[in-house]
Amino acid sequence: MSKWVYTFGDGKAEGSAEMRNLLGGKGANLAEMSTIGVPVPPGFTISTEVCTYYYTNGDTYPAGLTDQVETAVKGIEATIGAGFGDAVNPLLVSVRSGARASMPGMMDTVLNLGLNDETVIGLATRASDERFAYDSYRRFIQMYSDVVLGVEHHLFEDALDDVKRDAGVSQDTELTAANLRDLVGRYKKIVAEELGKPFPQDVKDQLWGAIGAVFGSWMNQRAITYRRLHGIPESWGTAVTVQSMVFGNMGEDCATGVAFSRDPSTGEDAFYGEYLVNAQGEDVVAGIRTPQHLTIKGKTKHGSNLPAMEEVMPKLFDDLCKIRTILEAHYKDMQDMEFTIQQGKLWMLQTRNGKRTVRASVKIAVDMVSEGVLTKEEAVLRVEPQALDQLLHPTLDPKAPRKILAKGLPASPGAASGKVVFTADDAEVWVKNGEKVILARAETSPEDIGGMHVSEGVLTTRGGMTSHAAVVARGMGTPCVAGAGEIRIDGKAKVMRVRDVTVAEGDVITLDGSTGEVILGEVPTIQPEMTGDFATLMSWVDEVRTMKVRTNAETPLDASTARNFGAEGIGLCRTEHMFFDPKRIVSMREMILARNEAGRRAALAKLLPYQRQDFVDLFTIMKGLPVTVRLLDPPLHEFLPNTEAEQEEVAQASGIDAATVRATVLQLHESNPMLGHRGCRLGVTYPEIYEMQARAILEAAVEVSKASGESVVPEIMIPLVMDKTELDMMKAVIDAVAKDVFAKSGMTLEYKVGTMIELPRAALRAGQIAETAEFFSFGTNDLTQTTLGMSRDDAGSFLEIYRQKGVVETDPFATLDQEGVGELVKIAAERGRATRPEIKLGICGEHGGDPASVAFCQTVGLDYVSCSPYRVPIARLAAAQAAIRQKAKAKQPA
Amino acid sequence: MSKWVYTFGDGKAEGSAEMRNLLGGKGANLAEMSTIGVPVPPGFTISTEVCTYYYTNGDTYPAGLTDQVETAVKGIEATIGAGFGDAVNPLLVSVRSGARASMPGMMDTVLNLGLNDETVIGLATRASDERFAYDSYRRFIQMYSDVVLGVEHHLFEDALDDVKRDAGVSQDTELTAANLRDLVGRYKKIVAEELGKPFPQDVKDQLWGAIGAVFGSWMNQRAITYRRLHGIPESWGTAVTVQSMVFGNMGEDCATGVAFSRDPSTGEDAFYGEYLVNAQGEDVVAGIRTPQHLTIKGKTKHGSNLPAMEEVMPKLFDDLCKIRTILEAHYKDMQDMEFTIQQGKLWMLQTRNGKRTVRASVKIAVDMVSEGVLTKEEAVLRVEPQALDQLLHPTLDPKAPRKILAKGLPASPGAASGKVVFTADDAEVWVKNGEKVILARAETSPEDIGGMHVSEGVLTTRGGMTSHAAVVARGMGTPCVAGAGEIRIDGKAKVMRVRDVTVAEGDVITLDGSTGEVILGEVPTIQPEMTGDFATLMSWVDEVRTMKVRTNAETPLDASTARNFGAEGIGLCRTEHMFFDPKRIVSMREMILARNEAGRRAALAKLLPYQRQDFVDLFTIMKGLPVTVRLLDPPLHEFLPNTEAEQEEVAQASGIDAATVRATVLQLHESNPMLGHRGCRLGVTYPEIYEMQARAILEAAVEVSKASGESVVPEIMIPLVMDKTELDMMKAVIDAVAKDVFAKSGMTLEYKVGTMIELPRAALRAGQIAETAEFFSFGTNDLTQTTLGMSRDDAGSFLEIYRQKGVVETDPFATLDQEGVGELVKIAAERGRATRPEIKLGICGEHGGDPASVAFCQTVGLDYVSCSPYRVPIARLAAAQAAIRQKAKAKQPA
Repeated sequence: MSKWVYTFGDGKAEGSAEMRNLLGGKGANLAEMSTIGVPVPPGFTISTEVCTYYYTNGDTYPAGLTDQVETAVKGIEATIGAGFGDAVNPLLVSVRSGARASMPGMMDTVLNLGLNDETVIGLATRASDERFAYDSYRRFIQMYSDVVLGVEHHLFEDALDDVKRDAGVSQDTELTAANLRDLVGRYKKIVAEELGKPFPQDVKDQLWGAIGAVFGSWMNQRAITYRRLHGIPESWGTAVTVQSMVFGNMGEDCATGVAFSRDPSTGEDAFYGEYLVNAQGEDVVAGIRTPQHLTIKGKTKHGSNLPAMEEVMPKLFDDLCKIRTILEAHYKDMQDMEFTIQQGKLWMLQTRNGKRTVRASVKIAVDMVSEGVLTKEEAVLRVEPQALDQLLHPTLDPKAPRKILAKGLPASPGAASGKVVFTADDAEVWVKNGEKVILARAETSPEDIGGMHVSEGVLTTRGGMTSHAAVVARGMGTPCVAGAGEIRIDGKAKVMRVRDVTVAEGDVITLDGSTGEVILGEVPTIQPEMTGDFATLMSWVDEVRTMKVRTNAETPLDASTARNFGAEGIGLCRTEHMFFDPKRIVSMREMILARNEAGRRAALAKLLPYQRQDFVDLFTIMKGLPVTVRLLDPPLHEFLPNTEAEQEEVAQASGIDAATVRATVLQLHESNPMLGHRGCRLGVTYPEIYEMQARAILEAAVEVSKASGESVVPEIMIPLVMDKTELDMMKAVIDAVAKDVFAKSGMTLEYKVGTMIELPRAALRAGQIAETAEFFSFGTNDLTQTTLGMSRDDAGSFLEIYRQKGVVETDPFATLDQEGVGELVKIAAERGRATRPEIKLGICGEHGGDPASVAFCQTVGLDYVSCSPYRVPIARLAAAQAAIRQKAKAKQPA
Repeated sequence: MSKWVYTFGDGKAEGSAEMRNLLGGKGANLAEMSTIGVPVPPGFTISTEVCTYYYTNGDTYPAGLTDQVETAVKGIEATIGAGFGDAVNPLLVSVRSGARASMPGMMDTVLNLGLNDETVIGLATRASDERFAYDSYRRFIQMYSDVVLGVEHHLFEDALDDVKRDAGVSQDTELTAANLRDLVGRYKKIVAEELGKPFPQDVKDQLWGAIGAVFGSWMNQRAITYRRLHGIPESWGTAVTVQSMVFGNMGEDCATGVAFSRDPSTGEDAFYGEYLVNAQGEDVVAGIRTPQHLTIKGKTKHGSNLPAMEEVMPKLFDDLCKIRTILEAHYKDMQDMEFTIQQGKLWMLQTRNGKRTVRASVKIAVDMVSEGVLTKEEAVLRVEPQALDQLLHPTLDPKAPRKILAKGLPASPGAASGKVVFTADDAEVWVKNGEKVILARAETSPEDIGGMHVSEGVLTTRGGMTSHAAVVARGMGTPCVAGAGEIRIDGKAKVMRVRDVTVAEGDVITLDGSTGEVILGEVPTIQPEMTGDFATLMSWVDEVRTMKVRTNAETPLDASTARNFGAEGIGLCRTEHMFFDPKRIVSMREMILARNEAGRRAALAKLLPYQRQDFVDLFTIMKGLPVTVRLLDPPLHEFLPNTEAEQEEVAQASGIDAATVRATVLQLHESNPMLGHRGCRLGVTYPEIYEMQARAILEAAVEVSKASGESVVPEIMIPLVMDKTELDMMKAVIDAVAKDVFAKSGMTLEYKVGTMIELPRAALRAGQIAETAEFFSFGTNDLTQTTLGMSRDDAGSFLEIYRQKGVVETDPFATLDQEGVGELVKIAAERGRATRPEIKLGICGEHGGDPASVAFCQTVGLDYVSCSPYRVPIARLAAAQAAIRQKAKAKQPA
C-alpha cells in the first residue's frame, strides 16, 4: 500500500530535510530535527501526494489514509504519554499547512485541537489552571470556527466584547475562568446558530475537519493569486503537519524559554538565553514576569539575582547544552531556539539561524572557521554585505532616546549631529566659526559641494537614493538623509517645518543615514572599529573574489579613503566635479560664455593646469592602478547660476554684461536636461573641451610616470555615446593630443579609450561601438533612467507608491533592474565581446556598491565593479559571495 | 583569349544593363542604350576584371588588353568618321571611371582627350571656331594635368589670372583665341617645369595615362574612405569607359538640346524641350542665346517666334521622336534626354528619369497605366509619398518674389500669410476682429492650443520637428515653421528681430511650412486640387496596401479631415488635449489641487460629461472604425500656469488660496518631466482619473452603439507602461468600470485594453506585457527619446551639428532610427506575438507618417500605422509601396 503519512518526534523520523517536495518545508524541517536527535514534540505529516490525489479524485482521500493517520496518532499518544480525546490526560495537537515553498496565502495554523467540553477539564486539572484551560478552549473554538468552519470572525469578537462589558472589564487578561467558561458557551452557540449544527466535540471529527481545511485552502483565492504572482505550480500541492502540543505551564517541573547558541550581540561563543518556570512561551516575551538567565555566567554578567536554569534544572540544562552542540554542528550556524519543558521532559519547539549584529556575524563566521565548522568560503557567505556599512560608520547609540522628526531615505550611512543651516554658504561660514553643522536643502546641486564637504551630515527634502545629495554624500562618507518629503524648508525665514514642529537655523538635529531618521536634538553615537576579525574575513573575501572592485572618486581624499578600503583602481572619475572650485568656476563660466572657439580655447587654457594637477594627484595616490577618467558630462547650464543676483555677480566677475549672461542661461535652459546637450554631445560640439581634458590627463600621466618610474595607463572614457561615430570622432581628438603630448615630452605611454554604456541604443549597438572602444563601463544610473523612462530626481513622487502597490520590489536606482536594464547590460556585454573578445567591462553606476547588483555583474562576467569609497568593502564581500555562488552553481548538474 | 574590352555605340553593344558588375554602372547603361537602338556616341568599356588583375599583379595590365583597346579605338574611328590623333579630322574622347556602385570618391572625368598641338588646329578648322578649339585644349591640359599627372591645380589658375590681367579683362569669356593660345603655351610650360617632361602630345600616351589614372584612383585615400563608410568591398574594382566626344557646334548642320518625353510640369503626354543650332550643350543652359522649342506646339504655347526643331530639322526631329518612344517603352518612365547633332547625325548623350512636379508625377503614373506601359503596382511605386504633401496644402506661387527673413524647420506643410501676433490670447482677439494672424512664439504649450487653432500659421524659434508646435500644427493641417533660431522674440515689446530687421505686431509675414522659410510681407499662394488622377492613384494604393492607416486625432475636425483623407480609424486619441478647453481647465485644476481622493473625485465628476461627449463625437464620426483612446499621459504640472499672476488667477477661480496653488506648482515641478510622474504612473497613483476616463469612453460607446445600431469597439490604451503589473492594475480599474457601465446601461460591448510601447523596458518585457495587453501601439516619439537619451525639445541645440558632422543622417524624430529604436520595436513585436499571436500592433508616433519609417513598419509586420490627418494620404502611399516591395523581395530567390 502507498505510504501517505510520515511520522517524526523525540529524536527519530521517517522523513528528512531532502523530502521537502513530499512533506512541505515545515514537515521536512521537523523530520530533519528529529533525525539528528533533537527531542521534537511528536507528530506526523500527510504528504503532498495526498493533496494531488484529493484534487484529481473529486475531493476524496486515497485508500489507507484513515488507517495511517490513526496509527500515527497512536504513535504520538505513546510518545507523549497522553490520549487524543482522553478526558483525564488529553493530547492536544496543532494542524498546519506546509507547501514546498512558503505560502502566506494559505491556511493559518489551528492550535489546541483536541479540546472539547470534557478534555478541557482534564487540561485544567493537569495544569492546575482552569483559566488557562478555558482560555485555550475559547481560542481553539474561535480559530477553528474561523479557519475550518468558515464562521465570520467578527461574531466572536462581538461576543468577547459583550462578556467584557458584562464583567465590567476592559482587558482580555482581566477575565476570570468563569467569564471564559461563559464565553465558551456563547461561542458554541454562535457556531450552532451559524451552521445549524453544534461545534464538533468528537476530536477525530475536529482533526479531519482541519485536514480537509488545509487541502481546501490550496485552492482558495488568496493561494491561487499568490501562486500566480510567484510562479508556483498548482501541481505541487500542500502537505499537512499534525504535531503534539506541549505545555510549560503544568507545574514546577515545567518551563519554557528561548536560547541563542552564541551571544547575538557580540558573537562570543557563550550560551545565551532566558527561561521561566511553569510558564507559557508568551510569558517570556510579554514581560509580565521577569525572565531568568539560562547560565550562571549570563546571570552574573547582567546582574540578575534570579536563579539560572543551570542551577535550578542542571540535568535539563545539560540536555539543552547538548542540543545546542548538535544543532550548531548540524546547521553550521548560530541558532535561535525555542524550548518547553513539560513535566521534566525537554522539547525543542523551533530552531532557526539566529539574528545577530554585524559585529557578531563577523566574529561568529571567523570563529567557526577556526573551530573547523565552516570553510573560509562558507564563512564569507555568512555575512550580509550591506550590513558591513554599520562597521564603517559611526552609529547612533541604540540605548539613547530619540525624538524622531521625520523619515527620509537612508541615502548615505552613518550618524551625525549638528546645528542645522539652510545654505551651503552658511555651512561654510558656521564651520569656519567652529560649529558643527547639518546642511538641510530642498535638493543639492554641484554648487553646494563646498558646503556639503564641511557639514557633518546632509538632509534633503526631495530626491531619491541616487539624487545628487545622496551620490555625493556617499562618495564623501558623509551621512545623508534624502527626500524627507514631510519636511518643508523655508529658505527665507531660515526655518524648516514638520507638521507643527519648527526647527530654526542653529537648532541641533541628528541624522541617521542608515535608517533615514531625522531626529531633534543630539543623540550620542558609537564610533566604528575595524576589528581583527573584520580584517581576517576581508582577506578571505579577496582570496575568492574574481571581479575587481574599483571606486568612484575624483578628490584625493576620496581616492585615499577608497584605497584604505581596498579599492583596486578608480572606475569613474567625474571630471566635472573638479570645475566647481571657486578658482576654476570663473574660467569654466568664461568658457561657456565665450562667443567662439578662440574664446573657449583661451578659457580652457586657464583650466588646463588645474585639471592636470587633479590627475597628477590621483595617479600618484593610485600608484599604477587603473584610473578611468570620464570627460565632461553634465550640460553646461549646470555651471551657471539661476538667480538674477548670482548672474549679476558672474557678469561682474567675468567682465561680460549681465544681459549676455542672462541670455546664455536662457539659451542653455533645457526641458529635460537629463536627455539634453551633455556627455559626448558637448565633445562633438566643442571638441576643444575634450581636447583640453585629454591633454591634462596625458600630461599628468607622463609627469607621474616619469616621477615614479612606474607606468600610468590612463583609461579615457567618453560619456553618453549612442553611436560608434561619436566615439570615433572623440578618439581622433584624443589620439591627436596624445601624439602631441608624447612628442613634446619625449615619452610614450599606453592609454585606453572607451565609453560609458548608459543609453539603450549604446547597449544595442555595442557590437559596432566595440570596434573602437577598448572598454565599456556600464553607467547604470543613466541606463536605468532611460530604460525605465524614469528620472531619478523626479521618481520620488511615485516610486514609494509603486513600492507600496507592488509594481516594483526595490528602488531600481538602488538595485539593478535585472529584467529590463539587466537585459541591456547582457546584450551589450555579449555584442561587445563578440567584436572584441578582450574588451574590459565594468560598472560604475551606484549599483556597483549594491550586493544584489554585484551578484548580477558576476553572472554577466564583468571584469570589475566600481562604487563610492565607503561601499568598497561591501562590494568586495558581495563580489566574493557572488563568485562562490557562481562556482557552486557551475558544479551542479545541469 | 580573355575578353577585357566591351564596345558600344550607334545602336548596338557587346554589353547590357545586366553587366553592371563587369562594366560598372556607367558602362552598363551606355551599353544598354546602344542595345535598344539609341544612337549613343561610340566607345568601349575596359572591365572591372582588369582592375582586379591590375592590383593582384603588381600594377600591370593583362595580356591582350593593349590590342583589344587598339581595336576598339579603330571601331570608334570607323563609326564616327574621324581619326584618333588625326590632324585634319581628329577624334576626341572622354575617359571616365565607373564602379558597380556610384563612388564620388573616385577619379573625375577627363574630356577632350586626343587634343594636341596638331589636332587642335583640325578641331578649330572643322568647327570654324579657333577660340572654341583653344579653349577646349587649355581645359583639357588643365584637367588632365590635375587628374592624371598630379600637377597642382592652383598653378593653372594663377596662369589664367596672369593672362586675364595681361589682357586687361576680368571674365574668362572675354579672352580671345589668341589669349587662349598664349594660355595653352603657359600651361604646357607649367607641366614641363613641374614634371620635368613635356605634356604628352601622343594621343595614345594620353589615353593610357588616363586609363592608368582611373585604376590608380581606386586605391586613393578618398575612395578607400568612401568604400569603408559605405561598405563597398575593394574586390569590386572599377571599370574605365572611353567614349567619343561629339560636337554640336561644327556648323549649321549641328545642334544640341535637351528634351523631356512628357511635360515635367503638368505630366501631359507632350514632347517638350529646347535646342540651339550650331551650339554647345552649355549654351542651352547658360542663357546667352535664347533656346528654341522642339515642337511647334511648344513654340505656340510659350509664344516664341523662333522656329521649332520640328520645322528646321524635320527628319532629325522625327529621329528624336522615335528615340523618345524607344526610351519611354524601355525605361517605362518619363525621360530627360540630352542630344547633340553633329553634322546631320543625331547622338544621344544621356537619358535619365526626368524630374517632375508631384502633379505631373501622379498624372504620368496614371496615364502610363492606361497606356499599358505600367502595371498599377509599378505606377504606385512611381510617386514619392512625401511629395503628396504639396497636393494637400496651399503652396506659395513659385513665380512670386519673396524676401526671406529666416529659415526654420519645415514643421507642418502648407503656406500662409497673416499679421504676426506674439501670444495665443492676442491671436484669438485679433481673429475675432476679423484679422488673419500668424502666431509667433518661442515655443508653444498646450495652453496655446486655442490661439493656434485660429491662426493661419505658427512660427516658433525653439523646438524641432516633433516639438509641441510642430505636432499640433501638423495635426491641425496648419502651416508651421519651427525652431527658427535666428529670430528673437521680445514678448514685452511685441516685436521680433532677425539681425537688423524688426517685425512688429501686426506686420504681415508669410510662412512656407514646406521649406521652413519665414518671409516678410504677403506672398500669393496656389490652392490645392485633388484631381481625378490623384483619386485614381489612391484607389490603387488601397488595393495593394496590407497595413491599415489610422490617424492621430482628438477633435471632431481632425477626425473628419482624416476620414476624408482615407483614415481607417483613430490610432491615437490624446485625451489630455481635451482638458485645456476653458470650461474644463478649471475642473482639471480643481482635481490637481484637491487635497484627497474625495476632492479629486468631485472634480473628476464635473469633467465626466465633457469627456463623454468628446468620445460620443469621435465614435459617431468614425462610424464603427476602431478608435484607440490613450488615457491621461502628461504630468499634471502641465495643467497649471507658471507665472505668479496666472497662479493668482487660478487661485481666485478655484477658491483655493494662492499660496497653496504656488506650493502645488512647486511640488509638482520636475527636473525631467519627460521621465517623470506621467502616463500610467498617474493612473497607478490616482486610479480615479483613469476610472473617470474609462467611464467616459465606455458610456459614450454604449450611447453611440445604441443610437447608431452599429457596435463601437473602443480600444483603451495605457501610456508609459514599463511592466505588466502596471497594466494589470489599470486593466482591473477599467474592467470594474465596464462591469458597472454595462450593468447600468443594460448593454454589453466588446472593448480592448492595450498599451503604448514607448519605453525600452516595455519593449524588452513585451512578452510578459502581452499576457495582459490586447494590442501594442509603438509610441516611437518617446521610445526615440529614451532609447537615444535625447529630448526632442532640447535636441535642437546639437542635432543640426550632429547632422553636419555625419553622426546622424536624418532627424531620428522624423525618420525612425532603425538600428536602435527599430531593434526594440522588432524585439517587442516578436516577444508580444510569441505570447499572443493575434496581438494587434501599430505605431502612433510621428514616424507613422514618414515613408521610410512606414516601410520599416511593413518589414516588422505591424497591422497599422497612425499619423496626423494631413499625413494620412502619404502614409497610405508609403504603406502601399512598402507592401509592393516586400512582395517583390519575397519572390526573389534567397
